[in-house]
Amino acid sequence: MAEQSSKSEYLVGVDFGGTKILAGVFDNSLECLGNAKISTKAQRGSDSVIERIARCVQDAVDEADLSLKQVRGIGLGAPGAVDAETGMVIFAPNLEWHDVPLKKELEKHLGVPVFVDNDCNIAMLGVYVAELKSKPGTAVGIFVGTGIGGGLVLNGELYRGVTHTAGEIGHMILDVDGPKCKCGNKGCFEALASRTAIFQQIKSAVKDGQKTILTEMLGDDLEDLRSGDLRKAIRRGDKFVDHVVEEAAEYMGIAVGNLVNILNPEVVVLGGGVIEALADEVMGIVVEVAREYILSGTSKNVEIIPSKLGDNAGITGGAVLAKRATK
Amino acid sequence: MAEQSSKSEYLVGVDFGGTKILAGVFDNSLECLGNAKISTKAQRGSDSVIERIARCVQDAVDEADLSLKQVRGIGLGAPGAVDAETGMVIFAPNLEWHDVPLKKELEKHLGVPVFVDNDCNIAMLGVYVAELKSKPGTAVGIFVGTGIGGGLVLNGELYRGVTHTAGEIGHMILDVDGPKCKCGNKGCFEALASRTAIFQQIKSAVKDGQKTILTEMLGDDLEDLRSGDLRKAIRRGDKFVDHVVEEAAEYMGIAVGNLVNILNPEVVVLGGGVIEALADEVMGIVVEVAREYILSGTSKNVEIIPSKLGDNAGITGGAVLAKRATK
Repeated sequence: MAEQSSKSEYLVGVDFGGTKILAGVFDNSLECLGNAKISTKAQRGSDSVIERIARCVQDAVDEADLSLKQVRGIGLGAPGAVDAETGMVIFAPNLEWHDVPLKKELEKHLGVPVFVDNDCNIAMLGVYVAELKSKPGTAVGIFVGTGIGGGLVLNGELYRGVTHTAGEIGHMILDVDGPKCKCGNKGCFEALASRTAIFQQIKSAVKDGQKTILTEMLGDDLEDLRSGDLRKAIRRGDKFVDHVVEEAAEYMGIAVGNLVNILNPEVVVLGGGVIEALADEVMGIVVEVAREYILSGTSKNVEIIPSKLGDNAGITGGAVLAKRATK
Repeated sequence: MAEQSSKSEYLVGVDFGGTKILAGVFDNSLECLGNAKISTKAQRGSDSVIERIARCVQDAVDEADLSLKQVRGIGLGAPGAVDAETGMVIFAPNLEWHDVPLKKELEKHLGVPVFVDNDCNIAMLGVYVAELKSKPGTAVGIFVGTGIGGGLVLNGELYRGVTHTAGEIGHMILDVDGPKCKCGNKGCFEALASRTAIFQQIKSAVKDGQKTILTEMLGDDLEDLRSGDLRKAIRRGDKFVDHVVEEAAEYMGIAVGNLVNILNPEVVVLGGGVIEALADEVMGIVVEVAREYILSGTSKNVEIIPSKLGDNAGITGGAVLAKRATK
């Protein structure tokens, strides 16, 4: 680990997933001073991805007109099971990583202390510290993007479970006869309501002749489809897209109901790319359906809200992790 | 609250539900010295039920050749949302109770300090303290009886949630198009795998002409059907009953998978009347199905076991509650 001067006042948060790497530079009050984004290129293998993370961190630091010497610590959320003590990524299915010593390798590249945790834990940490000003004792975070993950704050602390894999809410079965999930089971929350699930449904219906504004916008193969395009299509009156998104939102509501019945939290926060793009379209449905599924007489006052941090939840949480670890 | 002499060494645990009241007298090492059981007769109203609880406690104390003066405290699990501070039953749907001051009223009847919590929390407390000798940091209890409830131990402590209604795992949706639950939704775990769900399926099939050994044993209306009868029928080769129980066990396995994915616990314990009667028939299936539904690469070492306390989990937990509260 590199020597740190007392002038190292800044923090870097990194959120990396199967598709892209985001890095943000923060000051001690968690204000973002600059950020950078590059693609992950997971297929090139872990050494290459770690180099790309290092480059993305350097780009973000440069963007903020700072140098790495002024950075006190780097906090990083990785998409999989992480040993937070050693900074080892134990298993990351989307990257096909097993036992990658991420902390050690990144510290070699950058000469700054690195701290690693699961990406959804980190996103929840960011939401909890930077966004939930009431500091609820128990809060559940649901992050809907390419996949669906969760982060749990119980009794005021991030809850990780015995082998640090708690919060895999994307693989909660909601419909035992539902569509196949890439995990091998059927009817997982992720297979019903993630961006991947929504896109798959739209693309397969289009192949079967379904008309939609999306093909006018993007061409028949819908190759460059993004969550924001769904919003545009809905606002232009596309009933088909509206219906697909509504169904996904209903499943989000059922998932919220399940989690509230199990954990009786004060707050449920929904974040991630899908919520960032479609909050206005989905949140009303999510809340309405969740209220139907929450057991009558219980959890009347639970707050169900969208995160305002959007895609910045992960980098903010990374900065919080680094801040806490280098205090 | 009554004055207590230093000779009051014994503890009473009470488990009461919509159907029956159980009371047990325990010494300080949690050995059961005597117990009693009477029907609840919920339809007579809360005053009458509280009198019956008091009578059941007195019967158990008498059974143990003791007097109430020798009892230090009474711990009681109630089927609903409970304010553990005040001992008020806030809401108990099966009893149709709202805001019943159970602690205060029982103390008036018995002159002994009374402590109240939710029945599944109490059962989990009993299992955790008296049965799980390894004292896992995180353990999930699933109690399958007339309904299905859960008890959560997280970070070594009973977890209650913000308004003390955590653990309502019976209303986790597993099959969004499944059978109607009495809560109003469809496909709740409880509507798929509780004793009520199993019995309903059997009775409705018998009405439709299904042959089963159960009607030979109990007559065509199956009025006195109990969980133990299912075991007898299965052991006598009744394939229909075997199939119904197997399906319920599969849903138990899916529920275990969901809870393990969400909470990543060390241990999952299954208890309650159905498990007590049918552990040999269901546990193998529960474990096998749960392993299929636990996300690959996670929670490999989670233990999934039946509770040996059976119907005594509740009274044992009540005694633990009373012991802790009167230390």
